[in-house]
Amino acid sequence: VRLSYHLLQFQVLLYVFILVDLSLALFEEPAVFALPTWATMLVELLCLIVFTIRLIHYAKVIPRDKFWKDPKNICIIVILGLTMVDMIIYGALKASNCRAVRWSRVLRPLLLVNVTEGRQLRRAFRSIRNALPQIFYVFLLFMFSLLIFSLMALKLLGKRGLKTIDGAPYFTNYLEIVFDLYVLVTTANSPDVMMPAYNASTGFAIFFILYILINTYIFMSVFLAVVYNNYKKYLKEEVRQLVRAKRHKMVRAFAVLQEQREEGGEPVVSQANWNQLVRLVQPDLSNAHRELLWSVSDDTNQGCIGKVAFVQLADLLNIEVITLKSRPHPLQGVCPAFYLSAPSRLLCQLVQHRAFVIVYDLIILVNAVFIGLDEENPLISNSEWVFLALYLLEILLKLYVFEPRAFFSRHSFWNWFDTIIVVAALIATIINSAMKSSGDYTSRQILDIVFILRVLRLIRVVDSIKRFRTIINTLIRIGPAILTFGQLIIVVYYIFAMVGMEIFKGKVKFYEADSSDPAKAYCGNPSLKGTPFAQLNYCKNNFNDVVSSFVLLVELTVVNQCSGFTLVTHVSARIYFVLFHIPPFITIIVTIRPQLHIFVAFVLEAFFVEYSVEKSDLQTSLEKKIEELELAVYCWLCFLSGYRTVDALLQRMFEADLDPEDFAETDDPAAPTSGNFSNPAFSSA
Amino acid sequence: VRLSYHLLQFQVLLYVFILVDLSLALFEEPAVFALPTWATMLVELLCLIVFTIRLIHYAKVIPRDKFWKDPKNICIIVILGLTMVDMIIYGALKASNCRAVRWSRVLRPLLLVNVTEGRQLRRAFRSIRNALPQIFYVFLLFMFSLLIFSLMALKLLGKRGLKTIDGAPYFTNYLEIVFDLYVLVTTANSPDVMMPAYNASTGFAIFFILYILINTYIFMSVFLAVVYNNYKKYLKEEVRQLVRAKRHKMVRAFAVLQEQREEGGEPVVSQANWNQLVRLVQPDLSNAHRELLWSVSDDTNQGCIGKVAFVQLADLLNIEVITLKSRPHPLQGVCPAFYLSAPSRLLCQLVQHRAFVIVYDLIILVNAVFIGLDEENPLISNSEWVFLALYLLEILLKLYVFEPRAFFSRHSFWNWFDTIIVVAALIATIINSAMKSSGDYTSRQILDIVFILRVLRLIRVVDSIKRFRTIINTLIRIGPAILTFGQLIIVVYYIFAMVGMEIFKGKVKFYEADSSDPAKAYCGNPSLKGTPFAQLNYCKNNFNDVVSSFVLLVELTVVNQCSGFTLVTHVSARIYFVLFHIPPFITIIVTIRPQLHIFVAFVLEAFFVEYSVEKSDLQTSLEKKIEELELAVYCWLCFLSGYRTVDALLQRMFEADLDPEDFAETDDPAAPTSGNFSNPAFSSA
Repeated sequence: VRLSYHLLQFQVLLYVFILVDLSLALFEEPAVFALPTWATMLVELLCLIVFTIRLIHYAKVIPRDKFWKDPKNICIIVILGLTMVDMIIYGALKASNCRAVRWSRVLRPLLLVNVTEGRQLRRAFRSIRNALPQIFYVFLLFMFSLLIFSLMALKLLGKRGLKTIDGAPYFTNYLEIVFDLYVLVTTANSPDVMMPAYNASTGFAIFFILYILINTYIFMSVFLAVVYNNYKKYLKEEVRQLVRAKRHKMVRAFAVLQEQREEGGEPVVSQANWNQLVRLVQPDLSNAHRELLWSVSDDTNQGCIGKVAFVQLADLLNIEVITLKSRPHPLQGVCPAFYLSAPSRLLCQLVQHRAFVIVYDLIILVNAVFIGLDEENPLISNSEWVFLALYLLEILLKLYVFEPRAFFSRHSFWNWFDTIIVVAALIATIINSAMKSSGDYTSRQILDIVFILRVLRLIRVVDSIKRFRTIINTLIRIGPAILTFGQLIIVVYYIFAMVGMEIFKGKVKFYEADSSDPAKAYCGNPSLKGTPFAQLNYCKNNFNDVVSSFVLLVELTVVNQCSGFTLVTHVSARIYFVLFHIPPFITIIVTIRPQLHIFVAFVLEAFFVEYSVEKSDLQTSLEKKIEELELAVYCWLCFLSGYRTVDALLQRMFEADLDPEDFAETDDPAAPTSGNFSNPAFSSA
Repeated sequence: VRLSYHLLQFQVLLYVFILVDLSLALFEEPAVFALPTWATMLVELLCLIVFTIRLIHYAKVIPRDKFWKDPKNICIIVILGLTMVDMIIYGALKASNCRAVRWSRVLRPLLLVNVTEGRQLRRAFRSIRNALPQIFYVFLLFMFSLLIFSLMALKLLGKRGLKTIDGAPYFTNYLEIVFDLYVLVTTANSPDVMMPAYNASTGFAIFFILYILINTYIFMSVFLAVVYNNYKKYLKEEVRQLVRAKRHKMVRAFAVLQEQREEGGEPVVSQANWNQLVRLVQPDLSNAHRELLWSVSDDTNQGCIGKVAFVQLADLLNIEVITLKSRPHPLQGVCPAFYLSAPSRLLCQLVQHRAFVIVYDLIILVNAVFIGLDEENPLISNSEWVFLALYLLEILLKLYVFEPRAFFSRHSFWNWFDTIIVVAALIATIINSAMKSSGDYTSRQILDIVFILRVLRLIRVVDSIKRFRTIINTLIRIGPAILTFGQLIIVVYYIFAMVGMEIFKGKVKFYEADSSDPAKAYCGNPSLKGTPFAQLNYCKNNFNDVVSSFVLLVELTVVNQCSGFTLVTHVSARIYFVLFHIPPFITIIVTIRPQLHIFVAFVLEAFFVEYSVEKSDLQTSLEKKIEELELAVYCWLCFLSGYRTVDALLQRMFEADLDPEDFAETDDPAAPTSGNFSNPAFSSA
């Protein structure tokens, strides 16, 4: 009994509405493209109505008690309610010309987390939340170490009358020392913060080196270790429960389908029943693929399978097997005499030869040199046509040799990449030349696109070196898992951007390069006069609209130093209270950094699970079968590719800790994970 | 048959000579403390002679073919030979007043690696060397990505006539772009490198964000993943071979000691033989400890143990069990009537009460506030005496309550720490006051020491919070493993310092703060005039002596930016070729960074092996026995503490991959690892 609730169309529609809701920030005050308030509020109301309808529909589909037990539904209801209240208040205040704050915008990304489809994201959030207490203790110990070091710095350096490079007293105020040393942990203000002491005496270098060693290297390692291990622990628990629930469902399905072959024998499922089930669960599976899976499950060819083999089905379906029917080339059907003639076959051999790849790699290399040269030289700008012709020729030759449907199969990433890039470059170059010859005007945008496409073509060379291909393919395969994390970070960014915009909008202004306003020199804020922030022309790093906010937040995350910002805070306490209240900035760094660490650690681990040559047992037996059955299904090309879902990758990551015989015969398998009822894990199985 | 070759005294002597040899760099040109050339060369000659004698002795002790098959011996011979040749050439050139370079100084740290005692270090080096080919491919792919992005930047930004903040053309030279973007990977010049493009158009931020995402986060993660996983793979292999060799030796020992109890039964070793062996191998083991180990090995109390239990001995001895004889307090023996009287017993109860700890934590807190306050206030400077008295009282009280030998046992880290700090502070404060009252002169050094000791006292508070204690104790336990890595990094630093000093010495000069030399403004190098390097007063970051070189190298390693340096290179290509030839600097960053990554990853992993609550099987059974035998050995306090050796920690890290029944019945167990003959692993077993 499958719910057809999670239809792809509905999911896409829901995501579109969430995206529209989130992107409203572009049009609301402070806006990138200003729209009247009534327009944005109308769109938002529409989104809210859609979410409400969906929630009501959902509540009707699933049992009432399950609905109310699920925190994510409560969360959605609360968000919708609060947003409505905020909109009403905001509208009323605006109508009476009062200052109003749209605080409910902060809640929007939480919708992304809480809709059913955001399961991966919700799991990541839960894991982080559960790991918080452990992390807190390490953070406390780190703070203690920071305070002790600061006290020592105050005692050792405060009384020596040293001056910073700006002539300010050096290390005399305890709170400033704490802040300076905190920034030093991120290695941002090194070696500047150390120089005055080091210039006074070489011995003080020991203090700073010890500090960096203990706090930056050892403590941050421990911090990362605790964060990541806790995160992994909870993630593992979630994956284990998911696998258990999945297996329990399979056991129940087995109980429905089972039959007794012999008296007193084990119950089994016949191939006919099994086929019916698989067809129901995954209608788009090819017959060859289904037969392959059956022959893996029914290893001894008895025509029926036991419980253990049956339960494996869910995992087997998660292994992506690409099945391609090897058909003759269409030209062979149209004109066999020509296509099978000697010159035509020689051409096919040539194209399939290793030398063909090498020749084209060399062409790409030459092209790279030409791109690097000055394109105003007519010889070089015309050479572009030659290269385009060569690339087009390559694609046409390959289409001549290989069956077009196989060439453009869903998994031939590089073929698609090549064709799209070359065709797009051809179109853009033609438009560009047409515009150039028609008038003197050349569109900068078109030219930019032409340049980008030209350079992107060069990436193709990666595909011809096996080791590179392995690395890139691994990255592509762990892509979905990385994207989950990307979403997580975007949720956090969005919230911070909303808060930042409310607090800081308009505090720093950006003037175009051709502006002659004297305020340009200090970003339109007199308190920034003469500060490095203004001198380094950082005025565009502001919270004036949602795009600038995102760029600024990325800078703050990426850049260990935010040299401008720390310089600002370092040089004059005045600005650091006027403009950049420290608390939000520290919060940003403290909140986003660990997530980035988790991101890096996760990429690291997922990369190695995929990159390592070891295959799981199931994959191995599947591959063995493919080899065995080569003859039986000879008209099909079967090969293994990665996993279908993020779930499967996660399950693989924790495979060693999962008991394969653990069928979790509990009464209520849905209990451990909330919201398991409509668990898409089963839909993908 | 044990070799008494690895006696502690000899090892210490050897290390002293290596240290002397390494520290010669302090006295040689360019020197911190200049000594005449003949003096340093004489000392070096002495060191060389000592190493030669040791090598000859070693060659006599072990079989000839083993000696010549071992690459480390060859390595030592080559180093000694080259150093002699260099010293002769250098001496001759100096005598004839020619310019001479002591190039063999680079080889000195390799002695540290190649003496037998540097086994851990050698293993780390081997693992890194073996992992290099894999790392190389990822590095190539990274370079490819860097070149492609640079090309795109050139095409997109080069023709727009943008200017950097200094008015220089922005992104017009391909090689400069490559360098800028390379630096951006280390997040050093962000957001400066992005600002001109970002100011011109918001869209360009996408280019830089994509670049940072791909190259800094994803690529660096992959790089780290490949580096660390390969490193671990080889380390695991080495550990496996080590464990095998150890087990093989134990099997051979078993063959010698075994006897047949029953006809046709398994051969066994009797308790008497076993006792004799353990007494021979570890004479300092207490009887209680030995009995405990026996009862773990002979679980069923048969009076003899089989092969598997016997082989375990090596691992059992590696688990550190602290055995303390619980004796009555000496005062009880001297004056029992007083010590056992009611007030005395009340005092004991008070001191052992939780409130006592809390009271002293509060005192420490108050003390911290007093330290932070201005010590020129007489009330506050006198309060120091009160705090000192309170701390002394605490130690005396504890000595009154606890048995002094137990209080100062080898593993009571915090008791030792407390006592040393308080006594040292007392002495330093007395000296300080004495000097103050005798004349007006106060030694700055003494005062510094007093301050440091005062602040260090505060660390004690960590011990009273259980979670903090766990973290700190874990760190202390993985200390030796971390130190191995520290040595590795010092070897690399030393080599770079030697090379850097030969190339750059005297190029940048440091002038004291009170110097009035006009050259001070540009660090004595006219080509630095007006550069940020000179403006930020970085003159002391130079290669003029070995101490400065080390500090500079630490800065370059730690600091993602080396803001001065990159600014220098960014601003004017002139200086970057005159003063900081790029190649060595890139080499430093490329060479040292990955090691730091490995360091962090290693700390991370080792930390978790120790920090996780799970204990190894052996530890669990040992603990169970301790509990069972509580009554039998009741006069001994036994408790588990970490591992004795780095080897044991490493073995634990890879426990899951080691087959416990793998006795490696090969003919030559020494073959896999070179230099296994004098393997100290056996000495510690």
